[in-house]
Amino acid sequence: MTKLHIFTTGGTIDKVYFDALSEFQVGESPLDAILREANVGIEYDLTSLMRKDSLELTDADRDSIHEAVSSTDATHILITHGTDTMAQTAERLRGIEDKTIVLTGAMQPARLRSTDAIFNVGFAIAAARLKAPGVYIAMNGRVFPAGEVRKDRAAGQFVDARD
Amino acid sequence: MTKLHIFTTGGTIDKVYFDALSEFQVGESPLDAILREANVGIEYDLTSLMRKDSLELTDADRDSIHEAVSSTDATHILITHGTDTMAQTAERLRGIEDKTIVLTGAMQPARLRSTDAIFNVGFAIAAARLKAPGVYIAMNGRVFPAGEVRKDRAAGQFVDARD
Amino acid sequence: MTKLHIFTTGGTIDKVYFDALSEFQVGESPLDAILREANVGIEYDLTSLMRKDSLELTDADRDSIHEAVSSTDATHILITHGTDTMAQTAERLRGIEDKTIVLTGAMQPARLRSTDAIFNVGFAIAAARLKAPGVYIAMNGRVFPAGEVRKDRAAGQFVDARD
Amino acid sequence: MTKLHIFTTGGTIDKVYFDALSEFQVGESPLDAILREANVGIEYDLTSLMRKDSLELTDADRDSIHEAVSSTDATHILITHGTDTMAQTAERLRGIEDKTIVLTGAMQPARLRSTDAIFNVGFAIAAARLKAPGVYIAMNGRVFPAGEVRKDRAAGQFVDARD
Repeated sequence: MTKLHIFTTGGTIDKVYFDALSEFQVGESPLDAILREANVGIEYDLTSLMRKDSLELTDADRDSIHEAVSSTDATHILITHGTDTMAQTAERLRGIEDKTIVLTGAMQPARLRSTDAIFNVGFAIAAARLKAPGVYIAMNGRVFPAGEVRKDRAAGQFVDARD
Repeated sequence: MTKLHIFTTGGTIDKVYFDALSEFQVGESPLDAILREANVGIEYDLTSLMRKDSLELTDADRDSIHEAVSSTDATHILITHGTDTMAQTAERLRGIEDKTIVLTGAMQPARLRSTDAIFNVGFAIAAARLKAPGVYIAMNGRVFPAGEVRKDRAAGQFVDARD
Repeated sequence: MTKLHIFTTGGTIDKVYFDALSEFQVGESPLDAILREANVGIEYDLTSLMRKDSLELTDADRDSIHEAVSSTDATHILITHGTDTMAQTAERLRGIEDKTIVLTGAMQPARLRSTDAIFNVGFAIAAARLKAPGVYIAMNGRVFPAGEVRKDRAAGQFVDARD
Repeated sequence: MTKLHIFTTGGTIDKVYFDALSEFQVGESPLDAILREANVGIEYDLTSLMRKDSLELTDADRDSIHEAVSSTDATHILITHGTDTMAQTAERLRGIEDKTIVLTGAMQPARLRSTDAIFNVGFAIAAARLKAPGVYIAMNGRVFPAGEVRKDRAAGQFVDARD
C-alpha cells in the first residue's frame, strides 16, 4: 500500500470561531479528526504547512508548498487549501513529476454541523490514490486537471474553466 | 399556558459562514430550527428585531428592543443577543414591569457541530417561564439578575459582577 | 451556589450504535460531554446509576434511584431517564422532601446529529435550579409535576395527563 | 461527463431511530441529503432498491440488485449496502461487464453526529468515477476488488481477505 502524504495550508476548511474576537479564523486543521472518524485503514503522514486564508498566500508560500511536495518521498499527495486561490496553487505545482497531487478544500468549515468538508476529503483521498501522476483539484464531486478549472464564486462551485 | 415571545437580535448564536466573503456574518436566526428539533410543546411568537454583532448595537437599537418587549402582550420574554454587550442591554430593559425577560446567546454559533447555543436556549426558555418578573441573563447554566453580571472574555463565561 | 447532583439511568438519551451487533444499546451517558460543550459555570456531581431502557427498569431499580436521590446531600437533582416509564419513576420519588427533583430524557439519542437531548438537558437543569422542592418531569419545553404527566407515544411528546 | 447511478439497499448507513419502538431501523436513505450538502456538480440518478439490514438480504434480493445494475444504462454505479454481507453482494455482481460498480456503507449511521458515512460516500463516488470497469468495495479509505475483501468485525474495518 502506497503511503499518502497530507499537507494542510489553511482556508475555509480549517476555520474555527473565536468568540473573543467575534470572528472566524484559520485554526488547527480538522484533517486528523476527519480521518479518525472515518476509521481509515491507510497509512498517512500529516504535515501542517501554514494556516492562511488562500487570498493571503504569497509566492513564497507557494514556493514552500512546492518544496514540501517535491521533497516528500510519498507519491500520493493531498493538499487542503482555501478555495479562492486553489487553482493558482495547482498551476504552480505543475511540473512536479511522478506524483499524484490532489488539492481540495471546502466552502463551509469542517467544524460546521452542515459542511462539504468531510465529503470532499473522502472524495479527494480516493482521487489521490487512483489518478495517474499529475496535479488535480477535487471539489464538488469532480476531479479537474490543474489549468482547466476555476472557482465560480456565484455558484459556490468549481467548474471547468474551458466552458 | 402562558405564551412566550422570543426576540432575536443577532450575535454569535446567529452567525453563518459566507464563503463568497470568507467570513462569518450574522444570518437568519436558528431559533426556530432549534425549537422544532426539540419538538417543544409550547406556544411561542418569534420576532427578528435586528441582525447585528452586539458591539454594533446603538442606543437606538436598545430603544427598539425596549419598545418591542414593552409592547408585546406576552409576559414571558426570551431575547437572543450577542454576548459582548448583553449585560448592557439587560440593564437598559430594567424597569419594564410585570414581565420575565431573559437574555441568552452563545459563545459558538448554533450552526457549529460543537456549540453552547442549543443548551443555552433550552436553559433560558426554562428560566423565562419559571423566574419571577424581572430582567435576567441566562448563560453557562446560571441565571444572573441584570446589573449583577459581566462577561469574562478570558474565561469565555458570564460571571457574577460583584465577585 | 447550591450544588446540582445528576444521576443517569439510561434510556434513549444515552444510546450508542454498536456495529458489531447492528443495534443501538444504552451506552455511556453523554451528560458530561453535553455540560462541557455548554461550558457550564456550575458545580455538579455526576453519578451513573444504571444503563437500561426504561421499559426494563424493575421495582428494585426504582428503589435504587429513590435511595440514591434521598441520600445525596444535594438539594437540586437532575435524573436522565428513558421516556417510556419516566412518569412512573417520577411517581415513585414523590414523598422525598426538601429537594427539587427533575427528570428528563430524549426522544432521539444525544449522539444523533439532530436530537432533542441537548435542549432538554439545558431546560431541565434550569428547572432543577429554579423550581420549588418537589418532583417534576421537564420535557418538550414544559415542566410537569409528577402525577400529572404522561407520554403521548403517537405525538412523541409529554402532555398533561389530566387533559 | 458520464452519469452516476446510485442504488440504496439499506444497512447501517440508512438507520434512523424510532422512539416509539425504542430501536434503530433502516429508514429513508440519507444519500440525497449527503450529496446536496456536498453541493456536488455531477449528474446522478438515485434509486432506492430496498431497506434491509444486510444480514436479511436474500438471494432474491441480490438477484434484484444484479438486475437493477445490469439494466441501467449508466456505466458508473454506486451501491450503498449494509456491511455484514457487502462482500457477498459484491461477489454476486462479478461478471457484469463494462461497468464500474462500487459498494460502500458505514459502521455508524449517517444521521449520527460522528459517523464514517459521509467520508465513505465521498470516497466511493470518486472510486466509482475513476476505477476501471469491475466490482469493488470502497471502505475505510481503501478500494478492494470483489472477492479479495472481508469485514473484520473485531477491528470494525474492511481488510484484504488474502492477508
